[in-house]
This record gives sequence, C-alpha cells and structure tokens, in this order.
Amino acid sequence: MQIPLKTLRAIVGAPHVLTGDDVSSRREDWMTGAPCQAGAIVRPADTEQLSAVMHACHESRQPIVTHGGLTGLVHGAEACPDELVISLERMTAIEEIDRVGGTLTVQAGAPLQRVQEAAREVGLQFPLDLGARGSCTIGGNIATNAGGVRVIRYGMMRQQVLGLEAVMADGRVVSSMNRMLKNNAGFDLKQLFIGSEGTLGIVTRAVLRLQPPTPFEQTAMVACPSFDALTGLLSQMGKALGGSLGAFEVMWQNHYHLLTETLGRHAPPIAPEHPFYVIIESLGSDAERNATQFREALESALESGLIVDAVLAQSSTQRDGLWAIREDIEGLVKGLAPVLTFDVSLPIAEMQRYTDALEAQLTKRWPDARLVVFGHLGDGNLHISVSAGSAELPVRREVEAMVYQPLAALGGSVSAEHGIGLEKRPWLSTCRSSAEIELMQTLKHALDPHRLLNRGKILS
Amino acid sequence: MQIPLKTLRAIVGAPHVLTGDDVSSRREDWMTGAPCQAGAIVRPADTEQLSAVMHACHESRQPIVTHGGLTGLVHGAEACPDELVISLERMTAIEEIDRVGGTLTVQAGAPLQRVQEAAREVGLQFPLDLGARGSCTIGGNIATNAGGVRVIRYGMMRQQVLGLEAVMADGRVVSSMNRMLKNNAGFDLKQLFIGSEGTLGIVTRAVLRLQPPTPFEQTAMVACPSFDALTGLLSQMGKALGGSLGAFEVMWQNHYHLLTETLGRHAPPIAPEHPFYVIIESLGSDAERNATQFREALESALESGLIVDAVLAQSSTQRDGLWAIREDIEGLVKGLAPVLTFDVSLPIAEMQRYTDALEAQLTKRWPDARLVVFGHLGDGNLHISVSAGSAELPVRREVEAMVYQPLAALGGSVSAEHGIGLEKRPWLSTCRSSAEIELMQTLKHALDPHRLLNRGKILS
Repeated sequence: MQIPLKTLRAIVGAPHVLTGDDVSSRREDWMTGAPCQAGAIVRPADTEQLSAVMHACHESRQPIVTHGGLTGLVHGAEACPDELVISLERMTAIEEIDRVGGTLTVQAGAPLQRVQEAAREVGLQFPLDLGARGSCTIGGNIATNAGGVRVIRYGMMRQQVLGLEAVMADGRVVSSMNRMLKNNAGFDLKQLFIGSEGTLGIVTRAVLRLQPPTPFEQTAMVACPSFDALTGLLSQMGKALGGSLGAFEVMWQNHYHLLTETLGRHAPPIAPEHPFYVIIESLGSDAERNATQFREALESALESGLIVDAVLAQSSTQRDGLWAIREDIEGLVKGLAPVLTFDVSLPIAEMQRYTDALEAQLTKRWPDARLVVFGHLGDGNLHISVSAGSAELPVRREVEAMVYQPLAALGGSVSAEHGIGLEKRPWLSTCRSSAEIELMQTLKHALDPHRLLNRGKILS
Repeated sequence: MQIPLKTLRAIVGAPHVLTGDDVSSRREDWMTGAPCQAGAIVRPADTEQLSAVMHACHESRQPIVTHGGLTGLVHGAEACPDELVISLERMTAIEEIDRVGGTLTVQAGAPLQRVQEAAREVGLQFPLDLGARGSCTIGGNIATNAGGVRVIRYGMMRQQVLGLEAVMADGRVVSSMNRMLKNNAGFDLKQLFIGSEGTLGIVTRAVLRLQPPTPFEQTAMVACPSFDALTGLLSQMGKALGGSLGAFEVMWQNHYHLLTETLGRHAPPIAPEHPFYVIIESLGSDAERNATQFREALESALESGLIVDAVLAQSSTQRDGLWAIREDIEGLVKGLAPVLTFDVSLPIAEMQRYTDALEAQLTKRWPDARLVVFGHLGDGNLHISVSAGSAELPVRREVEAMVYQPLAALGGSVSAEHGIGLEKRPWLSTCRSSAEIELMQTLKHALDPHRLLNRGKILS
C-alpha cells in the first residue's frame, strides 16, 4: 500500500483501520466467498472523514475499492493487497423522511431493507426490491444501478434517486442532494455516479423518492402456448392493468420443468408441458377493485388464447409458493452444477430466436449441455444458466462467447442489471462501440485522472 | 465566422447553407420573436453530414448553436453573428416502431406531436406532453429534459429515453441506441446529453420508450381550504388512485381569481374564494373502473374535509374548460402586463411559506405588485408570475433576486423544467454549489475543450 496506516488512523481512529486477520476474515464478495485480499480496510464515520481519507489517498496515489453489502455478482468488490478497501458500514443512518414530499434521505451504507421498512412505517413505499435486500446497501444499489423485480412498474435504482452526495477521487465532496422531481438547473451530476460501479466517485448519501403504497397484490402463474402469445400477453396485460402491472416474470419451459418435474423441488401448480410460464403481479391500492381487474384481465387472456392455463394465488402462502419456483436459485445451481450464469438484455421480439440458437450451439458443442432461461421479460432482461460439464475458465470463456457474441447484432447488452465489474470487462466491447468506450475513458480520466477508484473495474 | 461557407456547402449542399435574409427572417426563439443573428444556418440531412460539419467546425474553432423547435424559454437558442446555427429541421424521420418492445426510434428533428401520433397509431402512447407539442422537437425535449403535465405519472423526458446518438464537439459520433429497459454495460452515456442543453453534444437520434395506452381520462377541479389540506389531498390521491394519478395541477387563489373574477375570461366552475384550486386527472384503461375509482376518491376527500368543493368533468368539452383556466397563459400575460415569469422547484412542504414571503417582499417594495402562482405541485414545481410595473432589466433583476435567493436555504432550484440557457446563468450558483459547478466545468472541458457547443449557455 502507498498510504501509511498511521495517516488513516489519524483520520478515522485506530479501531476503524482493519488489517491482518480482520481483513482476511472478511469475504471478498457473496459469490466467491474468498477472503478479502486488501492491504487494509478503513471505515469512515461520515462524509467528512471519507473526504479526508480520499484526499490522503489522492496525495499518495493510493488505489481504493469501495465496499457496500458485497452482494455483487461481477467481482466488482475484489481488492488486491496493494489496494485499500473503504467500507461504508458505519454510515447507515436514515437522516430524514419527508412525508409531504415523499422523500427519504439516507447514508449510503444503509441496507435496502431498512429503507423499505422505514418508508412503510410512514405509510409510503420504497419500490426497489431484490433478493439481497437484507444485505445490499443503498450506496451499492446506486453504484450498480440495481434492478430487481419491480422495474417494469417503477424503473431501476436510477429512477428512485432524486439527489446524492459523492466524494471524488481527490477528496472533494460534490453534494447534489436535490429533493424535487424536477430540477433542470445545469447538468444532472448524480447520473455520473449511478451505475458507474464506484469508478467515478464514492456515493455517501442520497435522497430517494418514495411512492404511494400499493398494499394489495394479485399474483398468478399462467402458461403460454407460444412466444408470440407471450409477447401478446405482455402487451395485453400492460393495457388491461394500466399502471398496476407490477411484475411479468417469465420462465422458459426448461426452467420450470427442471425445478418441478426433474428435481421435484416444487409441486407444479400448472402441468409442466407448456413452452412458457409467467408470474404476473398487479399492485393496487384497493383490494376488491384490484382483484376484479386482475381476474377480468386473466379471463380475457384465456378467452383470446394468449394463455392456456392459470393459477391465481388465493393467499400469501400460495403467492410465496409461486414465487418460490422463480426464485429457487439454489435448486438451479444444484440441478445444473457446475453452472455458468449470465444476465443479458436484448429486444424482446428477438428473445426466442436468440435462446433457440444458443441452445443449438451449446448442444452441438457439448451434447449433454443444458440451457435454462428465466427473466424479467418486460424489461428485456434474461437470466441464462448453462450447464456444460465444467465451470473452469476455458469452458467459461467458450460459453461466454456463445452467450455474448450474438447480442452484438441484436443491439443487446452483456449486462442487464449486474454491471460489468471485472468479470464482464473482456466482453464490454461486444455491446459498446469503440466511440462509447472512448467516451467512458474520457469521463474516467476527467474525474479520476490517477485511476484510484475501483481500478480495472468496467474499464481497463 | 471562422468556418468558410464553401466548406459547409461542400458537405450539405448549397441550398442547405442559409445566409443573409434567410437567416434574419427566422426568429431567434419563440419568446423574444427577435430575428436570428447567426452568421449562417446549416441544415444537415443526416448524422453523417452533421458529423462532417462538426469536424470542420472543430478544425476551424467555429462555435455553433443547435436549433430544434425554438420553443425554449431561457434564451438557449440565441446566436451571435460569429456563430453558426445547426438546424435539425431536415432530420425528422420516425425510423422504426417496435410494438413488442414498446420502442420508437426517431431522428432528433421530429416534432413531439408526430411522435405522440405515431405511438397512438400502433395502440401505444408516448406520454411526454406539453403546450409546445406541435413545434418542439424530440431533440430539444432531450436537450432540455422537458417536463410538462404528465411528470407525476411518467417522469420527465429523461425517463422516456432508452438510447440516443449524439455528435460530439469534434465530430465523433457516439451511438448508444439502446432499446432495452435495462442495460448496465458501463456508464450510461446518454445521461450526459439529456438536459445539458446542447453544451456537451448534439443529439441526432433517439430510442424512446412507449407506454400502454390510457384512453380513459377522469378530470375534476376541486377547491382546498388550506395548504395542509392541499398536501394531504396529494398524498391521499396518490394512494387512492395508485398508478393512475395522471395530473395534480394547482392554482393558488391569486391565479384562479385573476382569470375568472378579475378578467372574466372564464366562468368560474367553483366559487373563487378558496385558497387553492386543483385539477386532478386519473388515466385509466377501463372506462367504468376508472370513473368509479375516481369518484370514490373524490367523495372520500370531501368527507374528510381535504376538499370543500368539486366539479367533475362530464364531457371532454367540460374537461377542456377546466384545463383552459390552468393553461390560459395569454390571459395571465394580459392581466399582469408587463409580467415577469419564473419556473422554480422546491420541497412541497415549503411552498406556502415561500410564496407568502415572496408576496410580502414584493408588495413591500412595490405596493401595487401582484403575484400569481400555479404549477405542478406533485413535482415540486411552481410557475410564478410577477407584475411589478416594469419588465425592464433593473426591475427584472430585483424580482429575480426575490424569487431565487430564498430557494438556496430551502434546497430549491432556479429551474424546474425550463433549463438555464443564458437567462438563468447568473443565478445558477444560487442553487448549485461551487463544487457542483466546478464538476460541470470539468465535464464541459472534457467533452468540448474549445467550448464550441452552445457557448455561454448554462456555464460561462
């Protein structure tokens, strides 16, 4: 490390500069579970301390890696022995809730779930939601522009952020804590820090937009007879449910069949022979109206042949049972081990051709290979799992090529919601032009000329 | 001008380089109506020509001003005799509509209204809407991050843009024509060009997100007995109408009274003695359900005393009659002439204190001064009109100080939706810190080092 530990101790206090076992006993991230390799971990108490830390790092050219909840999936939190980890774990306060304006002001280290709960306590909701809610932090959600299961209704994290504060590479604090829905006074600087994975600055605080509550959920699982019916259903549900369509989660037959029939992990609510299964959810403010509207929309879809079977959840237990199939990542990993997983986006109309061609290519190369597909169809986002007999790097690279390269011609993306990190960096140019990558480098150079922030993540 | 006209003619053809009367017969913008002062106007046919024009301008250090529909309100389109205007009036094609994915690909010069109509023709909607819809262009909407009357439901222009293409100051084309709701493959470059008023690049094409149609509107005008009731009503309507609340437009009594009672331009649908009037609109996909839900929500608000009177539009003529009061800018200008108008945002809870204090300050300085307030309450956005006996610069500056300076302490903004342009540049630092402005300058320098793009707009 370039920076002397005593400099860090002088800023944050000795107990908040971790070294040795206190570093290696921490995991690098959720996925690998490997020990953290960083030279040290520093835990600032507030923006002021973090600013002083970054100023000192800048002076001594000390590269840093920012840690939030460590729930990322693309090795974005990996640190080398010559890197300093900055953990926001002491900056977790919910500072203010404005019920009239519908805003919540929070420090970046607060877990997502605490923000959701705090919003609920004042009769509002914070709609971003994903499986890691208990561990992931608001700062991480912002840095990675988190997605999840409510994007079709409320958008990604970018849309939930009204304002934020960030510490720049040289320690300067840029505070843009806007609280209004509309603010066109100059460049919208917060956009720089949302989704750039900590490479342009460290998010320290944010003003989040809260939404009116939608306490009444209607959930159904339906079966579609064809891909055309599936896209027709998405369109029809969008029209019939208006602003209340809250989820449209699709499982290809290979996903549904594996988890119900093959592995027997779930009793199939619908027979497993259909090509597509969809969990549709409607979020409403009036129990009866929401239920009627939802039932009528499903009946109309049945009548027009867009769906051939449907199960409407009659209780929250039944609802959880339907979602359990969709969310059974553990079953997927066990059933396909060793599994390779991918998170891509592409125009919805191209999806079936794309997955069919991918499956053909995989089984041509490895006759026993298996492909499993599910995802947020309305968002253009597919999660793809591949079992090709090995998860070692050479096989991984070969499968990556099969998954990613066809996206170029389709205008798709190698990362829908997980980000680039280290893992997908070799593939960034598949879906971004050299002019785009050049402009990213221009921004990186302008904001972090010594390349101290999350070195090597996204850009090399 | 630095650039020889023959260079431009060689790129776009002689008929598309305008000089002399062909320039001065054009208006500078909608507001001033003054003749365009630019050295010449060039009209590229496509991105390739525009790229060549910008490359040549960059070589010869020729500053340029981009023209869309010229409906801006902050002198963002003003050009000096040494500046070249680039008009996108020949780039108006709607290139593609993807019904399955719900996207529309369009050239930047297309008028907003044509995009709205094209979306409607395929059974979808493009929800951005504002008074200038017939003239304003998609490129201008993007460059200024346009707002309008549907922001509370669908967000500003930023939220409607999935991808875009821009020509940089040196002529490089950055094409980020993403078509998916989710794409986290590196920095979200489009954000740089949205709302930066043409100072970082020239938007040439865009992929817009379309929404399911909401053909059934319910519209009411209601009267609120107090500001607390007004914010309570906003909250209750948000809850009761869920995702279908489409507009919440408030008129302070001074606005309603002026246009109905004082000027007699409109028969008052509700007696003019209440402190606040609101136009509430619900957008639904089912006529009967939408009507019932809306009526019940209003009845409940009446019962709880949040509103004291209400008129529900029974026909589109009645609906237009209610909106006519809110949209009668001509009446406002006549009634308050010479009028000064402002577009600010601030936290909703602070609005009444802010307007009361402003009125007191105005009438203390000019006993006959009048203040009129209306706006998009749910967006934190107020449009303020002041009559202080003169619209000359010294008075204007004095009133600006009264309007803008108190916003600093409230975390408000000197521009909610109109942008900064030249007009509000002196006041940018009222609501943006020096660190923020420094970062804006850093971006400007990185992307347009010779300051050729919309020189002096936003930043000096």
